[in-house]
Amino acid sequence: MFHLLDIIGTMAFAMSGALTAMNKKLDPFGVFIIAFVTAVGGGTLRDIMIGRTPVGWMRDLNYVYVIAIGFFLAILFRKKLYKLRTSLFLFDTIGLGVFTLIGLEKGISVGLHPVICIALGTMTACFGGVIRDILCTEIPVIFRREIYATICILGGIVFFLLRKLDLDNDVLYLTTSLVIISVRLMAVKFKWYLPTLEHK
Amino acid sequence: MFHLLDIIGTMAFAMSGALTAMNKKLDPFGVFIIAFVTAVGGGTLRDIMIGRTPVGWMRDLNYVYVIAIGFFLAILFRKKLYKLRTSLFLFDTIGLGVFTLIGLEKGISVGLHPVICIALGTMTACFGGVIRDILCTEIPVIFRREIYATICILGGIVFFLLRKLDLDNDVLYLTTSLVIISVRLMAVKFKWYLPTLEHK
Amino acid sequence: MFHLLDIIGTMAFAMSGALTAMNKKLDPFGVFIIAFVTAVGGGTLRDIMIGRTPVGWMRDLNYVYVIAIGFFLAILFRKKLYKLRTSLFLFDTIGLGVFTLIGLEKGISVGLHPVICIALGTMTACFGGVIRDILCTEIPVIFRREIYATICILGGIVFFLLRKLDLDNDVLYLTTSLVIISVRLMAVKFKWYLPTLEHK
Repeated sequence: MFHLLDIIGTMAFAMSGALTAMNKKLDPFGVFIIAFVTAVGGGTLRDIMIGRTPVGWMRDLNYVYVIAIGFFLAILFRKKLYKLRTSLFLFDTIGLGVFTLIGLEKGISVGLHPVICIALGTMTACFGGVIRDILCTEIPVIFRREIYATICILGGIVFFLLRKLDLDNDVLYLTTSLVIISVRLMAVKFKWYLPTLEHK
Repeated sequence: MFHLLDIIGTMAFAMSGALTAMNKKLDPFGVFIIAFVTAVGGGTLRDIMIGRTPVGWMRDLNYVYVIAIGFFLAILFRKKLYKLRTSLFLFDTIGLGVFTLIGLEKGISVGLHPVICIALGTMTACFGGVIRDILCTEIPVIFRREIYATICILGGIVFFLLRKLDLDNDVLYLTTSLVIISVRLMAVKFKWYLPTLEHK
Repeated sequence: MFHLLDIIGTMAFAMSGALTAMNKKLDPFGVFIIAFVTAVGGGTLRDIMIGRTPVGWMRDLNYVYVIAIGFFLAILFRKKLYKLRTSLFLFDTIGLGVFTLIGLEKGISVGLHPVICIALGTMTACFGGVIRDILCTEIPVIFRREIYATICILGGIVFFLLRKLDLDNDVLYLTTSLVIISVRLMAVKFKWYLPTLEHK
């Protein structure tokens, strides 16, 4: 079940990366790299920083295959994806929840402090998009308007609070994901933004 | 003493990062990430490249706290920091000296060649700013005008020359930092720049 | 022989990086860093991702020296390099072949799957240029027009197909390099490009 959600999230991230890259008029290689980086860039950065190498996708080829499928789907249906954007958005949101959880778990498995684990969860979920934006020479969108990353941090805090209650792992995972997913849906519906901080 | 200077440097780097990010009109999350990356990005890159993982700030939460304080101070006093820029510049220069030393020491502790240690010192002191500029989609300022990095290289050379004299470690550290700090102050006062190299 | 080709490739990459940086009017430090990153950035990224640290150039100072020589040559002859661009292009193409092979070999030595080894070969040969472009705030050129990276992938596939034939290693290396080099020469001569994928 969890693995299925991971696949859905990975594919959604890959497709969103591919769409961004096509908007930038990149060639197929560029589109593939951006799709790849959007999907696994956050986890790769996390693995590198905690010293878990070779990084995840090098040890589990399923990520490569899922991204390749997402890449081809995005290219084939690029004219129709506009209509599917609600589904894509939903899958992307599932990815946000699942990737945060994976990052939290990796941090715990290496014995890191909860604050660092929350940073790793946020990194896993959000920094693929940061690398995507940098490769497209845009200031990362999550630094500007979206409260995307803030929701992952909130999810991480909820996770560690609940963890003190000695809940079953499944309940813990499910609740954390649901918090992240529902806050994200509400944030978009009610247009919650962080204010920008102007200097001077 | 050395640890105190490390804290002062980290906070100064975090505040300068936060100011840059606010000038770019980023949201609070973006400002925090840029502050974070400016302060510990160079050291993180160094740790990743020499294989010292989990990277430094994941093992010593004090960095996270100091950066968080710097971030809040920069936001609270953002309208007044202009008046404090001389102090900020001084703290930043202390950071330059201390971070170079930390990088040199880490390189030595892994048994690397002096040339590589000097590269690691420069990376520790200067590449947080490089990552900050890239995340803000600017060509890194130290590649264009400031002789910032060149001073760290000079400091590294002085360090290895003095080291041959079998000085006490404290004297070695103090002299190297003072060289870096005083050359930096003179460079700014007398407007020393590297010439740009034009092609054609 | 192979080591000589590695040196030629490294120097060609360093010089091409230095030229790009001079076009961007960077100062000497900036030009050196871009030259360095163009030459060893791909291999550094590969080493970090597979956990082979300290990364390659920290353990073999010859890379540093070769890059320094390439940097000085590029600066000294910057007004004349235009005439030498055919030679530079040829050396660059040799680098493409050699670096792909080095990446493939490193992947095999860590016991990774052929698909991942091909990714590592491509990364070694092409991602120095990606980091160079990002540091110069350009969308990486290999994501836009050049079929550069695609040739490395093709070379990698040829390598693993030939490897099944139990050929002598020298023959295997030579054939793979020749495939990469000749396809690259043809691609430039006959202006082969990948089509860009436009969205909508």
